[in-house]
Amino acid sequence: MKPFVFVNIASSIDGKISDESRKQVRISCREDFQRVDRLRAFSDAIMVGIGTVLSDDPSLTVKDERLRYERVQAGKDENPIRVVVDSRLRIPLNAKILDDRARTIVATTEKGLERVKLIEERAEVVVFGREKVDLRLLCEYLYKIGVRRLMVEGGGTLINSLLREKMIDEFNIYYGNMIIGGRNSPTVVDGESFADPVRLELISCQKLGEGIFTRWRVVYR
Amino acid sequence: MKPFVFVNIASSIDGKISDESRKQVRISCREDFQRVDRLRAFSDAIMVGIGTVLSDDPSLTVKDERLRYERVQAGKDENPIRVVVDSRLRIPLNAKILDDRARTIVATTEKGLERVKLIEERAEVVVFGREKVDLRLLCEYLYKIGVRRLMVEGGGTLINSLLREKMIDEFNIYYGNMIIGGRNSPTVVDGESFADPVRLELISCQKLGEGIFTRWRVVYR
Ligand SMILES: NC(=O)c1ccc[n+]([C@@H]2O[C@H](COP(=O)([O-])OP(=O)(O)OC[C@H]3O[C@@H](n4cnc5c(N)ncnc54)[C@H](OP(=O)(O)O)[C@@H]3O)[C@@H](O)[C@H]2O)c1
Ligand SMILES: NC(=O)c1ccc[n+]([C@@H]2O[C@H](COP(=O)([O-])OP(=O)(O)OC[C@H]3O[C@@H](n4cnc5c(N)ncnc54)[C@H](OP(=O)(O)O)[C@@H]3O)[C@@H](O)[C@H]2O)c1
Repeated sequence: MKPFVFVNIASSIDGKISDESRKQVRISCREDFQRVDRLRAFSDAIMVGIGTVLSDDPSLTVKDERLRYERVQAGKDENPIRVVVDSRLRIPLNAKILDDRARTIVATTEKGLERVKLIEERAEVVVFGREKVDLRLLCEYLYKIGVRRLMVEGGGTLINSLLREKMIDEFNIYYGNMIIGGRNSPTVVDGESFADPVRLELISCQKLGEGIFTRWRVVYR
Repeated sequence: MKPFVFVNIASSIDGKISDESRKQVRISCREDFQRVDRLRAFSDAIMVGIGTVLSDDPSLTVKDERLRYERVQAGKDENPIRVVVDSRLRIPLNAKILDDRARTIVATTEKGLERVKLIEERAEVVVFGREKVDLRLLCEYLYKIGVRRLMVEGGGTLINSLLREKMIDEFNIYYGNMIIGGRNSPTVVDGESFADPVRLELISCQKLGEGIFTRWRVVYR
């Protein structure tokens, strides 16, 4: 058993989620930030790859106070669980995702054992796999501890692996009204390309702010 | 003076226009092929980079007989002029784009002079620039010979250069219902990324077949 897993990501119209410097580029608009904040508030956990933590240092908390209040009223923690996929435990001790505003799980492998003690002072560490984090085992574990809705916020390398494991149910993509360009810029799905493209079904597509918001269901064959 | 220049391209939802093998991937659906055929018929010229000729060997002619007939009725050639951007004249003699179904212009540079004689048996050769084809001069030349609507069909390297030269007025992107993935796959805009993203205005966005068709106006600053 695994949670319902959906990706939410902001992309330029040419599929880029940052430029070749890999630093954060502001792609979303105000309307989209509000949509993402609500999606976070309605999730049980939010997952990112270590690449995203190192580039963007996100805190992955719910920004709107009322949404956090509603969660508490419903008997939940103020914020969803934060999950980092980090096979070698490269996460910096001062990463925002390790602050005390929410529960954090760092998933690692046997390659990360050396730093486990250090990170355990700030987060729960789970070990799944030898080289790269075993995403199937991780998703099963998250289901076991009660996660039913898992939001994946990137990056493209993690999303590629999750797709290969047939773990992703849905894509929510906001296309901002811009072109970032660059053959080396990170994209929505990086890693190696699929010899047989992954098929989707369009759920919805609408104008939002100056861009468009699209939702797609993944159809595995 | 330059023609109205618009890009038309088919992309996966993650911005890829092919996979890492760079071979042609079928992204469009029947409805989109018809739309593209009409766009071609209403253009005066269609431009591609030599990368696209070498990978896909496109013929870039109008497929629908009635559309060709309408062009002839209006006093035009059956097909728009085909334009290849090819600084070193790498174009193979048996490329479909050099067949006799339409007028073809191959734009090259001083680096291509050696093969000019050979190619001139099959197409018009124009020389603009020293290292890479000077796209400004080429667009001015096309305007001079009567081209008012120029359709650019890719690939991502040529599109990047045209954007840097502020030559592109509009993007028409069809997002097929698929994910191709791959950090090395060609994307809608390759080359180097823009430090300051190129801004766009959404013209329209609609479901077409199983995917979505979007149009964006380029806003240069
Ligand atoms: N626009 C947006 O919405 C958005 C959102 C997020 C990120 N971004 C951008 O995306 C970029 C970062 O993306 P990224 O692709 O470099 O990094 P990423 O996907 O965040 O993280 C990838 C890393 O996770 C680790 N990992 C561990 N197990 C894995 C597994 N089974 N499969 C895949 N990865 C595994 C690997 O490093 P180890 O082997 O060291 O563990 C891998 O390199 C940044 O430029 C950021 O700005 C943009
Ligand atoms: N899905 C679609 O709708 C679609 C459409 C078209 C292409 N594609 C895909 O795109 C890929 C090919 O794209 P690509 O980016 O490799 O090639 P490209 O953009 O078609 O051609 C780029 C080449 O044009 C030449 N060139 C000459 N002057 C230039 C200038 N001023 N600026 C830029 N380029 C100049 C350069 O080669 P020289 O220096 O040798 O001249 C350059 O490498 C293929 O995989 C193809 O399948 C997909």
